[in-house]
Amino acid sequence: MLNLMSTVYAVVMAGGRGERFWPLSTEQRPKPFVPLIGPATLLQETVARLRSLVPVERILIALGENHRAIASRQVPEIPPANFIVEPVGRDTAACLGLSAIHLAQRDPQGIMLALPADHFIDDPEQFRQTVRKGIENLEGSTGIVFGIRPDRPETGYGYVRAEKPALPAAAWPVIRFVEKPDAAKAAEYVRSGRYFWNSGMFLWRNRTLLALFEAHMPEVSQALNELRPLLAREDAQGEVTRIFSSLPRISIDYGILEKASGLRLVPVGFHWDDIGNWASLARAVPADSSGNIAQGPAVPVESSNCILRSDDGAVAVFGVSDLVVVRARGRILVCSRNRATDLKTLLSSLPEEMK
Amino acid sequence: MLNLMSTVYAVVMAGGRGERFWPLSTEQRPKPFVPLIGPATLLQETVARLRSLVPVERILIALGENHRAIASRQVPEIPPANFIVEPVGRDTAACLGLSAIHLAQRDPQGIMLALPADHFIDDPEQFRQTVRKGIENLEGSTGIVFGIRPDRPETGYGYVRAEKPALPAAAWPVIRFVEKPDAAKAAEYVRSGRYFWNSGMFLWRNRTLLALFEAHMPEVSQALNELRPLLAREDAQGEVTRIFSSLPRISIDYGILEKASGLRLVPVGFHWDDIGNWASLARAVPADSSGNIAQGPAVPVESSNCILRSDDGAVAVFGVSDLVVVRARGRILVCSRNRATDLKTLLSSLPEEMK
Repeated sequence: MLNLMSTVYAVVMAGGRGERFWPLSTEQRPKPFVPLIGPATLLQETVARLRSLVPVERILIALGENHRAIASRQVPEIPPANFIVEPVGRDTAACLGLSAIHLAQRDPQGIMLALPADHFIDDPEQFRQTVRKGIENLEGSTGIVFGIRPDRPETGYGYVRAEKPALPAAAWPVIRFVEKPDAAKAAEYVRSGRYFWNSGMFLWRNRTLLALFEAHMPEVSQALNELRPLLAREDAQGEVTRIFSSLPRISIDYGILEKASGLRLVPVGFHWDDIGNWASLARAVPADSSGNIAQGPAVPVESSNCILRSDDGAVAVFGVSDLVVVRARGRILVCSRNRATDLKTLLSSLPEEMK
Repeated sequence: MLNLMSTVYAVVMAGGRGERFWPLSTEQRPKPFVPLIGPATLLQETVARLRSLVPVERILIALGENHRAIASRQVPEIPPANFIVEPVGRDTAACLGLSAIHLAQRDPQGIMLALPADHFIDDPEQFRQTVRKGIENLEGSTGIVFGIRPDRPETGYGYVRAEKPALPAAAWPVIRFVEKPDAAKAAEYVRSGRYFWNSGMFLWRNRTLLALFEAHMPEVSQALNELRPLLAREDAQGEVTRIFSSLPRISIDYGILEKASGLRLVPVGFHWDDIGNWASLARAVPADSSGNIAQGPAVPVESSNCILRSDDGAVAVFGVSDLVVVRARGRILVCSRNRATDLKTLLSSLPEEMK
């Protein structure tokens, strides 16, 4: 275990768009780079959680070129060489493929801990214990999926069906991945006790991941092989971009995990949330007795179940309920809580200068 | 008529508090002094409507000391001597009593046209014609009340019962004033065709008004007589304030009009609204096909029946209905439309620095 720990590299996936947390987040500053919960950004919190588990020399950050500068400012402790720049956004399969060939050059025996940069995790120590448990259970498996015990029939997440192990300390053999289910299916999954939410956090030996690409995404694997010799060449950036752009927009779940055998699942022991939109902030931040959450100088009066956030100045809400009100970057959003999932629709209707 | 016109003095009552249009209006800048409908403030619009009817030398403005500076800036054409300063707010009876003794010194034969500074009137020419009709009908009456034909059973206004005259050009003899009725009474009044809303606009000979004070508010009349010799004395301001402060907080309607006989009513030929709160803006400003009103850079998307106003920057509302959203003076109000009448409650709950 101690030996293995020294070969673990964290790959923090800091991609993503800025729509769901508009007006706080934007394309120039997507969700990982904004302080959603506390004073630190989600990226900073993700790196901070890793610090006593993985030294900064082995924390890699995968991101878009246009976010490299903001990431350098936010986590200056990460060596510049550890930024893995995706020339364009191509979802998690391409992101982790690119990360895998970077890591292969660095340490052919490396273990990759892949983590989204924009999730909420309440207990850093529990997080680290969970990762350690994953590492302990890596031997003999294709890879480890970290799974969340569902507490509601969420239809927006992917699920993982797993088999309860005989020993409590052991990982659960993964039976299958399930794409976002309908409400009835989701309710059945929650009742069963055998289904977990796919957290998007994974652990595998880097060479196993590359083998999985070869087996299940042979064209991507070939493109990655073409990319390998180009990575260090400053003069090849155009070619890198061309090849990377040709990769399919597919998630690692859909491209590889659903097809792979021998995966195991480690249930997480912390409170986790992907905070997919303003409304889901309510699952990560405690509300007052009227169900209101207020961050910044925002005051709810005779109002209930509102999510208020102000970075710019006074916001007063009066006699309303189930609203999201956000004041940031000089802009105001007022949105019904149940439409917070759909800010893309709003943004497509706004004049450019207002976005 | 031409002779009479030259003795008409307009008294524009520019008192009032700032609560109902917070955050745009404040105690320092109440409703008459904010641009609610167009680019001009309600005070500016009130004075502009009067311009071709009464020369500025005969337009008086009654206001609080703390609003004298803002009024001078907004209507610089009004001579400084025409500002009648109320030492404290004491409602319309005291305001018009003070105005009457000012006017008595200026022109003992003067006719007073008393007008609130904060009402919406859509058609300035119709307004002037209506005033002229009042002046034509003044002879033989105690005073003229301008009445609005009600188009809904409003319970927030006072009503005036009047008798239809034989000649269409004549004024309607006033039968009685009715304080804010309940919904059933209000509906009955609207159906009857004999009830009008009290517009708060009045016309009378100034000496008649002073006689009405003597008859119906003898203590106020006595106080006014004490004030008369003090008005021009700079050294008597403390005494003026003391006496004026002792006056009861009573409206002219309640203090005098309800008791007076011989009043006549002239129905108005323009669209009028007192715009009592943000929600009532909807009666003065046209809405889009979804019932939304948007002033400034405020965009409703998949929203209906919202009143949006921004003086400071971008406001986007999404998937909501029946809200008032106002952005002004660095502050944001989000309020349900049916609570817009009650902003006082909100303000009493806000921390001082947010108001």
